This record gives sequence, structure tokens and C-alpha cells, in this order.
Amino acid sequence: MAGPLKTFTHTVVLGNKPLRTYLLDIIVGFNQGIEVVEIVGEGKNISKAVTLYNMLLDRLGDSVSLDNIEIGSVIERGRRVSYIKIRVKRI
Amino acid sequence: MAGPLKTFTHTVVLGNKPLRTYLLDIIVGFNQGIEVVEIVGEGKNISKAVTLYNMLLDRLGDSVSLDNIEIGSVIERGRRVSYIKIRVKRI
Repeated sequence: MAGPLKTFTHTVVLGNKPLRTYLLDIIVGFNQGIEVVEIVGEGKNISKAVTLYNMLLDRLGDSVSLDNIEIGSVIERGRRVSYIKIRVKRI
Repeated sequence: MAGPLKTFTHTVVLGNKPLRTYLLDIIVGFNQGIEVVEIVGEGKNISKAVTLYNMLLDRLGDSVSLDNIEIGSVIERGRRVSYIKIRVKRI
């Protein structure tokens, strides 16, 4: 019996590390068979998430494609924080 | 003879004004018959663009819907700048 269809997704929540660290992490992940990477940036890290996406595109070119972008907000400790989730697929 | 189909689009490029200024501008625009608003944020203003979108959603609720999100980068004065374009439609 075949199991359910699985997609290996890797989520990267941006913090204070240099963007190059996350970039390397994602590229290694793709090489290890991860199919989808979700880049998550909250608040001021939203801009960083878009920059990281552009860096990834520069490095991997046509071997990745933009799968989806989600924007929204969540309540964290009583304050509303905006976020972005950028899904990138390995082709 | 019918002319080409027209959509009244209004583009808001974020700068240093308080977000409330842009919010008011957009709401007034929708009331005046604009159908699509494109919120553009570059560099550090990308985060602001997402926050403005969330504020708009709070105010206008079901009468607006997210039409499209575009992310990318442009070269400006030799430097690459990331951007986001959030298209919001009046229903």
C-alpha cells in the first residue's frame, strides 16, 4: 500500500544571523532532497525574507521557482506582527 | 464602439510618511472609484508594505481582496534593491 504523498518542506524563520547563513542552509537542504523551502520573516525581517529570496534566485537560477507568497499578521504577546511566507520549490 | 477595458489602478510607493497617511489615501481612492491599489515597498519599506496591507484589511474587511503579490529586485544606482508589490482589489 502506498503511503500518503509527502513533500519534504524546510522552514527557515529569519532571525539575526547574516543572510548568507540562511542561504547556505537552504542550498544544502535542496542538495539533500528537500523539495520546498518556506522563508518566514516577521516584522522588520519581512524585508530580509525578500532579499534572501532574491539571493537564492541569483545562486540557483532556473532550478528553483516561486511557489507561493503569503502575507498576514499574527498576535504575539498582545501585539500584532506582520509576516511574510515565501515558498520556493526545487524543480 | 466600446473602448478597451479599463481598470483604475492606484500605485502607492511607500516613503517616510506615517502609514496612516497612506491608509487614508487608499481608502479615499477606493471611495472615488479606484478598483485596484498597488502597494509598493522597496528595501526596508517592504515590511511597511505588509503592515499597511494588514491595516487596510482591518479597516475594509471583506470589501477588499488580495489580488497578487510580486517580489523581486531592481538595480538602482548600481545597487540591487529588493521590492514587494501588493495588489489589492476592491470587490
